[in-house]
Amino acid sequence: MSSSHDLSVTVVGLGPMGRALAGAFLAAGVRTTVWNRTPGRDGELVAAGAVPAASAEEAVAASPLTVVCLVNYDATDSVLRQEAVTRALKGRTVVNLSADTPERARDTAAWADAQGIGYLDGAIMTPTPTIGTPTGVFLHSGPEPLYREHRPVLDALGGGHTHLGEEISRAAAYDIALLDIFWTSMTGYVHALAVARAEGISPTELAPFAAGIGAILPPLFQELAEDVESGSYSGEANPLTSAVSTMAHIVHASEAHGIEAGVMRAAEGLARRTVGLGHGAEGFTRLVEVLGRR
Amino acid sequence: MSSSHDLSVTVVGLGPMGRALAGAFLAAGVRTTVWNRTPGRDGELVAAGAVPAASAEEAVAASPLTVVCLVNYDATDSVLRQEAVTRALKGRTVVNLSADTPERARDTAAWADAQGIGYLDGAIMTPTPTIGTPTGVFLHSGPEPLYREHRPVLDALGGGHTHLGEEISRAAAYDIALLDIFWTSMTGYVHALAVARAEGISPTELAPFAAGIGAILPPLFQELAEDVESGSYSGEANPLTSAVSTMAHIVHASEAHGIEAGVMRAAEGLARRTVGLGHGAEGFTRLVEVLGRR
Repeated sequence: MSSSHDLSVTVVGLGPMGRALAGAFLAAGVRTTVWNRTPGRDGELVAAGAVPAASAEEAVAASPLTVVCLVNYDATDSVLRQEAVTRALKGRTVVNLSADTPERARDTAAWADAQGIGYLDGAIMTPTPTIGTPTGVFLHSGPEPLYREHRPVLDALGGGHTHLGEEISRAAAYDIALLDIFWTSMTGYVHALAVARAEGISPTELAPFAAGIGAILPPLFQELAEDVESGSYSGEANPLTSAVSTMAHIVHASEAHGIEAGVMRAAEGLARRTVGLGHGAEGFTRLVEVLGRR
Repeated sequence: MSSSHDLSVTVVGLGPMGRALAGAFLAAGVRTTVWNRTPGRDGELVAAGAVPAASAEEAVAASPLTVVCLVNYDATDSVLRQEAVTRALKGRTVVNLSADTPERARDTAAWADAQGIGYLDGAIMTPTPTIGTPTGVFLHSGPEPLYREHRPVLDALGGGHTHLGEEISRAAAYDIALLDIFWTSMTGYVHALAVARAEGISPTELAPFAAGIGAILPPLFQELAEDVESGSYSGEANPLTSAVSTMAHIVHASEAHGIEAGVMRAAEGLARRTVGLGHGAEGFTRLVEVLGRR
């Protein structure tokens, strides 16, 4: 890794994640210019050595690489596609770490290409406290030479960086799929906390066992991926009919306490549909085929 | 732990989990009598030394303790509440490891009490391959003296056993809450696999990153439980509005590929309702209060 001291970067977007990114760059000795649409977010960063920019065009002109971290691509467009900003970006590179859909990533890459702007898309898979530490997980996609060129700056963020390929939408697609797992699981957890509380079980009583369930998931995800890839869907140890029976118990126990169970009802409906298609003796992963049906 | 060789147990229900339980008892040297409503499931167990019973009443009469592992409490009732079986159980103990709702556990305990049958309720939180190994997780509830009396037999199953308290519904309540987390997460995973596949990402490509997301959950569950218990719901690092924005991206990306997103739509609706109640700047766990509202 080259010395960080000759590196510079601009960070656009100073929400909690943007501030964490800028803070990590500063801590690694990267010359960091910062800008946020709403002023007043850069105080601590400027105190730590960041250069405040007076405008978005001044910000992006200050560094060869601009890291964008906004709420979505509507926000990204509203900054980058202003004429003065687009002009200032020509010949420079944007790494867009904002979250949105794969199609928005493709659209933004096409725009950047037409404007002569280098474009990499990325996703941050770990929460703000991991930024600047070895546990951060960053996914990137887009032109490999561009990724290699800016890797020294990105490395200043710490953590693990994976280049998923040249196809620009790849990072967003991984991001969507992984956040699907994350937010669905989180919804299950808050629902479980509500049901447990109604049964007189406090959050901290449930938590160690909930963590135990969480710990089952990583190896199971790996194992089930093989099952789906091979199309075997073996339900020998746990047939779909048994999962459906459990899901019905959860809905019933929840609603008996007046706690809505819309998420589990939707999941149960999908599982029952899969059973109805004749797959009751197969494994739960058979749902992938039913979801993906044309 | 006392020697297993003077211990005996009856296992009723020889589905995959019942067979695993009986196999673990046999491997630990416990004299094991087995019975299943549909015949022909006991072949391997009998070859390994299990005693086959000709009827359910003969089965429960063979041991001081009967472990029941059926699909649900309708199935449990249909076996145990036959007159001859109930008579044979008088003065003996049942540990019911079948899964159902807390209210069914309470109902079964009341019935057992009226019949002079000792009753413990339990739940198995880990899959069949963990039975008989140190990684199995068993939850129990009901009279503590009864639990202590039969603990030596239960210990033959290996793994960790937790007595959650005298309240009989406690194991079922934990079971429901934990399975709520498990099956909601699993639904998120199969949905993510479908979306990923539509974007050209294979299950085994996604799996290591999915496992990474899974690994985030256990410490997060612990941390968020404190947040809910204290009622702080701090959303500073990740406000609910940001989660809602992500959920909308997931729905959009999924439906753009013709993949239904009913589960995430239900989750998003719940989160938006919570935002609408004025909690947009708070953390995602604020949903617990909205779900549990009277």
